[in-house]
Amino acid sequence: MKPILVYQTDFTYAEGAVCAMYGVVKSVDRELEIIDGTHEIPKFDTWSASYRLYQSMSFWPKGTIFVSVVDPGVGTPRKACVAQTADGYFVVTPDNGSLTHLKAWVGITAIREIDEEVNRLKGKGTEDVKVFHGRDLFSYCAAKFASGLINFEGVGPEYPVEEIVMHPLHEPEIGEGIVHGIFEINDPNFGNDWTNIPTRDFLSAGFAYGDTPLLTVQHHGEEVFSRRVLFHQSFGYAQKGDVVIYNNELMRISIAVNQGSFTEEYQIGYGPEWTLTISK
Amino acid sequence: MKPILVYQTDFTYAEGAVCAMYGVVKSVDRELEIIDGTHEIPKFDTWSASYRLYQSMSFWPKGTIFVSVVDPGVGTPRKACVAQTADGYFVVTPDNGSLTHLKAWVGITAIREIDEEVNRLKGKGTEDVKVFHGRDLFSYCAAKFASGLINFEGVGPEYPVEEIVMHPLHEPEIGEGIVHGIFEINDPNFGNDWTNIPTRDFLSAGFAYGDTPLLTVQHHGEEVFSRRVLFHQSFGYAQKGDVVIYNNELMRISIAVNQGSFTEEYQIGYGPEWTLTISK
Amino acid sequence: MKPILVYQTDFTYAEGAVCAMYGVVKSVDRELEIIDGTHEIPKFDTWSASYRLYQSMSFWPKGTIFVSVVDPGVGTPRKACVAQTADGYFVVTPDNGSLTHLKAWVGITAIREIDEEVNRLKGKGTEDVKVFHGRDLFSYCAAKFASGLINFEGVGPEYPVEEIVMHPLHEPEIGEGIVHGIFEINDPNFGNDWTNIPTRDFLSAGFAYGDTPLLTVQHHGEEVFSRRVLFHQSFGYAQKGDVVIYNNELMRISIAVNQGSFTEEYQIGYGPEWTLTISK
Repeated sequence: MKPILVYQTDFTYAEGAVCAMYGVVKSVDRELEIIDGTHEIPKFDTWSASYRLYQSMSFWPKGTIFVSVVDPGVGTPRKACVAQTADGYFVVTPDNGSLTHLKAWVGITAIREIDEEVNRLKGKGTEDVKVFHGRDLFSYCAAKFASGLINFEGVGPEYPVEEIVMHPLHEPEIGEGIVHGIFEINDPNFGNDWTNIPTRDFLSAGFAYGDTPLLTVQHHGEEVFSRRVLFHQSFGYAQKGDVVIYNNELMRISIAVNQGSFTEEYQIGYGPEWTLTISK
Repeated sequence: MKPILVYQTDFTYAEGAVCAMYGVVKSVDRELEIIDGTHEIPKFDTWSASYRLYQSMSFWPKGTIFVSVVDPGVGTPRKACVAQTADGYFVVTPDNGSLTHLKAWVGITAIREIDEEVNRLKGKGTEDVKVFHGRDLFSYCAAKFASGLINFEGVGPEYPVEEIVMHPLHEPEIGEGIVHGIFEINDPNFGNDWTNIPTRDFLSAGFAYGDTPLLTVQHHGEEVFSRRVLFHQSFGYAQKGDVVIYNNELMRISIAVNQGSFTEEYQIGYGPEWTLTISK
Repeated sequence: MKPILVYQTDFTYAEGAVCAMYGVVKSVDRELEIIDGTHEIPKFDTWSASYRLYQSMSFWPKGTIFVSVVDPGVGTPRKACVAQTADGYFVVTPDNGSLTHLKAWVGITAIREIDEEVNRLKGKGTEDVKVFHGRDLFSYCAAKFASGLINFEGVGPEYPVEEIVMHPLHEPEIGEGIVHGIFEINDPNFGNDWTNIPTRDFLSAGFAYGDTPLLTVQHHGEEVFSRRVLFHQSFGYAQKGDVVIYNNELMRISIAVNQGSFTEEYQIGYGPEWTLTISK
C-alpha cells in the first residue's frame, strides 16, 4: 500500500487552506490517504512543529510521510526539503528548525531540497504565488512521492545533514536527590507542562512514586512556584486541584494540576528561560 | 469490510495526542478507517461524552466501533472496557459514566474489561506510561478488535452490566398544558439549549406549532428567564434575535435565539439545577 | 472511483452534529470517502461559505462533490439544491447566497432542487425534524448521488440558474498608478486581509515588487490606515511586525503584518464598507 500522508500545520481550519492542500494531494493520486496530525501548531512556532513530529511519529507505520508546514519564511530563500529519518519515516517540511528533535533524538539519514522546477504544482494559475508552499510545493511534492511518481532521489538534490537548521537543545542535570531542567513544551489543552528530564533518570536520582519532593520553578531566574508536591504515575492520584509531578506519555517528568491547568493557574510557559529544580 | 472506528475525546487537536493514537491504529492494521466524531468534548466531562455517543451513534452502520476517551481517572483503578449496545454497536471507553445514556436509552447487552496483559501496546517504550490509555490501551485494543485480531471475547473478562458506572438521569413531568424538565445538554456552537422533554410528549400535552407559551427557566430554583415565546419547527420561523422553542434534531424540546445564542445571552447552563417550565 | 465528498459547515466540532452527518453518509455507502473542508465557517455567514468554495474547489479532482451547510434558514422555505459548476464539480447546499462566487466567477451550468420525498433520510425517527438538513437532507442526498444510487436528474426538478440567490459583488477600479477596491474576505487565522484586486491588474497599473506605495484603508469612508508599505511576493520579505502588500494564494492583492495580524492590529474587517486605495 502507498504510504499515508500525515499533516501538521499552523493553518487551523479557519479558512480554506487545508482544503486546498488536500485537493492537490487527491488530484495527484486519488488513492492517497491523508490524516490530520494537527493544524493547530502555534503560529510560526517551528519549535512546537519539531516537538510534535517527535512526539507522534514513532507510533506510525514505517514509511509514513509527514507533511509539516509551519513556515513563516515562505517565499524567501529558506530551503524546502524532504528528510529521511533513521527509523524509516519521511518529513516534507521547510528546513527552518522543524527537524530539530528528529535530528537530535532519532537521526536524519538524508535530506534533499525540493526541486521547484519539477515538483511544484502547475496549470492552476498559481505559478506566481509565493506564499502557499503548503499547497503548491509541499503537498504536490509529497503526493508525487507517496504515489510513487518520484522516488526519494526524485525530490531534488541531496545536501549535507549537517546543514539542517537546528534550534538549541538543553540537557537536564541529574544529581543524587536533585534534578535541574527546563520546561520544553506544554500540553495546551490540559495545561500540563513537560520537562526535558527523562523519568528513568529521575527515578535513578532517588525519587520514587508516592514521594513528595520540593518542586521549584523559575522564570528568567525568578521563583514563580515552590512547594512540596506528590510525584506519581498519573495525575489521577492527586486530589482534584492539586499540583502533581508525573511520568508523561513520552516518559518524561511533567507537572499537572489534577483536573485543572498548571499552565494557567501558575502562568507557566516553556523554553530555556523556564527552569525547574526538583529535590528531596 | 472491517468496522469503522469513530473517535471522540476531550483532547482537542492542540498537541500531538490524537496523531499518536491514530498512528497506533494504523500500525495495527493499515486498512482501518478512522473518523473523527469530535475531539472537543468539554474537558473531564463524562456526561457530555455519554450524551454525544447517544446523539450520533444510531446514524452509523451497525457494527461501528466508537472509541470514547474522556478519562480524568486514567491510570487509577477505574475500569477500561468495551461495551456492546442493544442496537449493534460497540464502545471502547473508560467505565466512568460515559455509557449512561446508551445504557438507559438504548441498552448495553454485554460489557468486558480490557485485559491489559494482552491488549496493551508493547514495544514502543511506553509500558510504564499510565497517563495515556487513549493511545496505549483504548486505541490499540480497538484496532485489534476492528481488524479481527481479537473478537469481543478476546477483549477481556465480562462483567455484569448492572455494575456500569451511571450518572443520574432526570425524567420530565408532562401535564395538561404544562411541562417541567431540565436542560440536559447544550449545543456549544450555536448556543441552543436542549431539554429532556420529548417533543411528542410536549405535543400531546396540548401545545402546537405556532403557539406562544410561557417559558420559565430557573437555576437552583431562582428564576432567570420568563417570557412568552414562539414554539415552532425551526428557529428560522422566529425573528432574528428572538427566543424560540423548537423541536431539535433528536425530537426533544429545545430553546434557541434565532441567529443568536440563548446560552450566552441569558447565561444558561445545563444539568439538574437548570429547570424549566413551559405552560399555556 | 466514486467521487469524494468534501464538507464545509459552520457547525464546528463542539458537539455531535458532524459525527451524525458522516454516519448518514457511511450508512448509505460504506465506501464513500469524506474529507473535511472546514467546519469553522463563521456562523450564518453565507458569504464566507461562498468564498471558501471558490477558494479551494479548483484544486480537487473533477467530479468532487462539495457539501456546504451554512443554513440559517433551515426548515423555512429556502431551496435545498445541488448545483453543477462549469468546470465539472457539484455543490450540495442551501440556495442562500452560498453559490455567489461560483456562479459569478466559475459558472453554474445547472441547478436542481432536492426532492425531499425521495432524497431525505427515513427510518431514523427524524422525519419530523426541521432543523438539521445537514444530516437528514444534504448528507443523505449527497451520499446517494456520490454512490450512484441517483444521478444528477434524480436529485429533483431543475430550475433556472438565473434564480440562484446571489450576494452583490464589487469590482475594483484600476487606474494608472492607483487602484481602488474592497476587502472581500480575510484569513482569520493569520490575520491577513484579502482584496478584490487581481494582482495582474495591480502589476499592469504600474506597481512592481519592491515598491513602497501608499496604502489607505477606509471604513464607511473614514480613514483607519494610511501609510507607505512594502509591496512584495511574500510577507516574508517584510521586517517582522511590518505591514506588507503581497500577492496572495489566489493571485489577489492582500495585506498582512509579517508574523503578526493586520486584522487585529488595525481592527480591519471585510465587506463593501471596507475600502482601500493603493497609489504610487
